[in-house]
Amino acid sequence: MDGKMSAPTQLQSAMEGLIEVFHSYSGKEGDKYKLSKAELKSLLQGELAGFLSASNDPLVVEKIMSDLDENKDGEVDFQEFVVLVAALTVACNEFFVDSIKSEEGKDGGSGCKTK
Amino acid sequence: MDGKMSAPTQLQSAMEGLIEVFHSYSGKEGDKYKLSKAELKSLLQGELAGFLSASNDPLVVEKIMSDLDENKDGEVDFQEFVVLVAALTVACNEFFVDSIKSEEGKDGGSGCKTK
Repeated sequence: MDGKMSAPTQLQSAMEGLIEVFHSYSGKEGDKYKLSKAELKSLLQGELAGFLSASNDPLVVEKIMSDLDENKDGEVDFQEFVVLVAALTVACNEFFVDSIKSEEGKDGGSGCKTK
Repeated sequence: MDGKMSAPTQLQSAMEGLIEVFHSYSGKEGDKYKLSKAELKSLLQGELAGFLSASNDPLVVEKIMSDLDENKDGEVDFQEFVVLVAALTVACNEFFVDSIKSEEGKDGGSGCKTK
């Protein structure tokens, strides 16, 4: 942001990815900077169908919408969206760490397990 | 997670990126699944030096560490890390949206500005 245009780091790319994804869906109708219910549904189905298989269930979309929409304006803004992504990423990370730990337990592992 | 191995979507890639970045730093010393203060500093400098220019300041690292380390164990776990990334991404998004809006104001814009 200070004029240096070096290649983005992996973390910067991930953050930009979150912003791009949000706007590629939020710009479709109504407020360009917020997700309507239809846009949220489209995002869940288009981006997370793989591990949020319930994203086809209208009741689940309704529930996620009402959970995320903290200010109850019927739309999900970027901050509310990031809360969902953060929660999902934490869940994925736990799954990932558990699977590594159980691998280590199986084959003796290579890392420090003494703490 | 159900055995289907289709290409990850942009959102999934971003989430995986966050997990990968965290573990590439957290695995260096001590608890492999948490960032020590040295690892956090290294992550801030390696990944965010571009737009967190204060990441070279030891006091700033100290402050971020104590803000993030909610459970006060002297280390930052993945959940605590995601809170930082979420806050930074929201700030970036606001910067991005503001710059689009001011562009639109300047040249007449192409989108809906009537709401």
